[in-house]
Amino acid sequence: MPHLVIEYSDNLRPFPEAQVLEAVNASLTASPEILAESDLKSRFTTAERFAIGTQPAGRAFVHAQLRLLSGRTPEAKQDLAGRVGAVLREHTPRPAGVMVQLSVEIVDMDRASYVKEKL
Amino acid sequence: MPHLVIEYSDNLRPFPEAQVLEAVNASLTASPEILAESDLKSRFTTAERFAIGTQPAGRAFVHAQLRLLSGRTPEAKQDLAGRVGAVLREHTPRPAGVMVQLSVEIVDMDRASYVKEKL
Amino acid sequence: MPHLVIEYSDNLRPFPEAQVLEAVNASLTASPEILAESDLKSRFTTAERFAIGTQPAGRAFVHAQLRLLSGRTPEAKQDLAGRVGAVLREHTPRPAGVMVQLSVEIVDMDRASYVKEKL
Repeated sequence: MPHLVIEYSDNLRPFPEAQVLEAVNASLTASPEILAESDLKSRFTTAERFAIGTQPAGRAFVHAQLRLLSGRTPEAKQDLAGRVGAVLREHTPRPAGVMVQLSVEIVDMDRASYVKEKL
Repeated sequence: MPHLVIEYSDNLRPFPEAQVLEAVNASLTASPEILAESDLKSRFTTAERFAIGTQPAGRAFVHAQLRLLSGRTPEAKQDLAGRVGAVLREHTPRPAGVMVQLSVEIVDMDRASYVKEKL
Repeated sequence: MPHLVIEYSDNLRPFPEAQVLEAVNASLTASPEILAESDLKSRFTTAERFAIGTQPAGRAFVHAQLRLLSGRTPEAKQDLAGRVGAVLREHTPRPAGVMVQLSVEIVDMDRASYVKEKL
């Protein structure tokens, strides 16, 4: 059931998306929190029209959002966020003169109303 | 006020988007939870760069997120998620050899800080 | 750390994105809630396949989502939402014969599991 969405500002292109998808899915599905590897649905999106703060300086961001059914412990969430962060830390481009901000967010999805099935 | 975002992996193209928008908006606005039909804002987005799990097998997903002002009962949320699920179950393509995962998520939006108006 | 995502239906094109980004970032970073201007990451996205309600009448929407680390007071959230709303109210196009709905949503991000760093 986990959904992972990784977004980056397009001044980080070329971004090694395929490598990141492989690495992050391997790392997350190795966690005991994710019972079936096929449950993890990861994707990329790119921000093409953005502004970071109010200064014209070179700035970029990569932000990942991992959505999980509610009920995980705080420790489990921290571990999962750390796994995503580690992969992004390793693979995110760092263009010269550009400040790159990395963030990872864990989101609880309401378990009681969640619909899930295989078609 | 409800916002519905339906996302699917692009190996489900062609996806009958117009049909789904018509059917899902009809079903949701028929619920007593949605007071004015014009409040429901539904849209599609497509995931073009994605990975599901760690196996190369053919896999696809469709995921819907319905964002509502907080305060609905659990039963109301389940009913609304079920309406979205039913439409997607009927219309989502099922390519041969592809495992398709369907999910629907209800999100509470903070009512106290929500801004809403007609321009 | 704040993330701002502004989405609009594409029947509002041309949308003055650059002006809005400049104005909204100036307004939000002037709030005491946002400690460093460079923390604010704002971007646009456009809905190209959408339906609002069930009538064919001309309708459009602009919706902003501001994601903040949890812990703000309700008053602070209302103020921040109001800042975004004011900028959008001023700059959103109002095509003749089109009903335009404006909304702003504040989202709490789980502070305990949030990962944030500069690369």
